[in-house]
Amino acid sequence: MLNTLKQINSTSAFNRWAGLEVTRAQSGEVELTMAFREADMAQYSGFLHAGLIGGLLDTACGFAAGTVAGSVLASHFSVNCLAPAIGEVFIARGRVVKAGKKQVFARAELFAQTGDQLKLVPTGDAILVPVEER
Amino acid sequence: MLNTLKQINSTSAFNRWAGLEVTRAQSGEVELTMAFREADMAQYSGFLHAGLIGGLLDTACGFAAGTVAGSVLASHFSVNCLAPAIGEVFIARGRVVKAGKKQVFARAELFAQTGDQLKLVPTGDAILVPVEER
Amino acid sequence: MLNTLKQINSTSAFNRWAGLEVTRAQSGEVELTMAFREADMAQYSGFLHAGLIGGLLDTACGFAAGTVAGSVLASHFSVNCLAPAIGEVFIARGRVVKAGKKQVFARAELFAQTGDQLKLVPTGDAILVPVEER
Amino acid sequence: MLNTLKQINSTSAFNRWAGLEVTRAQSGEVELTMAFREADMAQYSGFLHAGLIGGLLDTACGFAAGTVAGSVLASHFSVNCLAPAIGEVFIARGRVVKAGKKQVFARAELFAQTGDQLKLVPTGDAILVPVEER
Repeated sequence: MLNTLKQINSTSAFNRWAGLEVTRAQSGEVELTMAFREADMAQYSGFLHAGLIGGLLDTACGFAAGTVAGSVLASHFSVNCLAPAIGEVFIARGRVVKAGKKQVFARAELFAQTGDQLKLVPTGDAILVPVEER
Repeated sequence: MLNTLKQINSTSAFNRWAGLEVTRAQSGEVELTMAFREADMAQYSGFLHAGLIGGLLDTACGFAAGTVAGSVLASHFSVNCLAPAIGEVFIARGRVVKAGKKQVFARAELFAQTGDQLKLVPTGDAILVPVEER
Repeated sequence: MLNTLKQINSTSAFNRWAGLEVTRAQSGEVELTMAFREADMAQYSGFLHAGLIGGLLDTACGFAAGTVAGSVLASHFSVNCLAPAIGEVFIARGRVVKAGKKQVFARAELFAQTGDQLKLVPTGDAILVPVEER
Repeated sequence: MLNTLKQINSTSAFNRWAGLEVTRAQSGEVELTMAFREADMAQYSGFLHAGLIGGLLDTACGFAAGTVAGSVLASHFSVNCLAPAIGEVFIARGRVVKAGKKQVFARAELFAQTGDQLKLVPTGDAILVPVEER
């Protein structure tokens, strides 16, 4: 499962650019890791940009859904910004809340790591729609 | 107002990397434009990645809020993915729905341009919290 | 279309209790009206309760979706509370944003009427899933 | 804390009508219970109406926020409808995810009880804004 997700991850140009790695996967759960680069990932204050926050949370939800439902497309995602996204490494953990035939509901949490410390920064929700395999 | 937003936009490393431009601004409304690059902006199927979709919508909402409320931080944003984000250029239009003292509600629409055609792809909502100017 | 929705509306016990009426309907758009009753519809401050706000917005989205997609079930709805819901009559206007085969995206606005004045109070979004007719 | 919430709960006309009871409360967490009445709480298929689903989730989030932040007003809430809301009794559990000075983020789960069985039906998120005490 981990290898399949790593392979899918490598087919996304944006994920390659961001250095996104799939670091854990099991049925209904995944973990993604991304090192912060101030030179091209920051917003106005030097924190992680909302685009990368949303991208990490959406990808964690989509990959978690993928472990139980095959190919999926996100139809909705939302992000709650609990705290400024400041850290050296970002770790997103996604899990399936409910997998139906027509829709999969998933959630994800994004943690900012600085030294040994992990801090929960935003959380996200997504609705994924299973698609027929090509 | 347009020049102020252009200047703020230029301070975000991610916005510079993405080639995001502020193309219109008036009180409560902004337009952003970004050319698609398949080499580093695509997801698995070659469409615009959710991270850039979310980043464009969130930025359009934040800049629209900024035109009426000064510095703001997003506390929540959500995205509805109406159609696959396929296009040569992406145009995000954000507008303020309600500007309160504690919170600003904004909405944005993302259009994909291919040749002369504009197609609405996702829509987004954000809640922005005004912050004291540094 | 209006008569079909009025008939469906009358089959919901909660809608009957709330005195919800379908006052307009055309393809992709509906309007609902409900008179406020302080005796059983208020929250702590005497304003319209969030349950009724959500119920009106969700129903307006669902009925709007129904005009183009037949029977639907809501899988997600969200509400932005722009202003306190104070009024004598509440009017919800829903419209379809995008009707796909698997999902219908709809939006609604809730207006509070006091005398001749209409004020936008919350807005809502819903995702509706078409179901097979029984 | 439980008594304070019970007292606040009793001041809401809608909560009294719905027979909503606060059954547990501690810092950052609450539980609400409501018996289902088909005669005035049902939607078209006889399940619990979205208005009551939203009302229970929003109230559970608001009361959970109230245990740590005093008086609050909801500015946003969203609901994911995982499964049809069918049951004899509904139990909503809300908890604070993050309590900031300007905003409190809370989540809630709604369980449907039938006999001895508890089933998770929808989940919800809310953003609450602390208000000055009157």
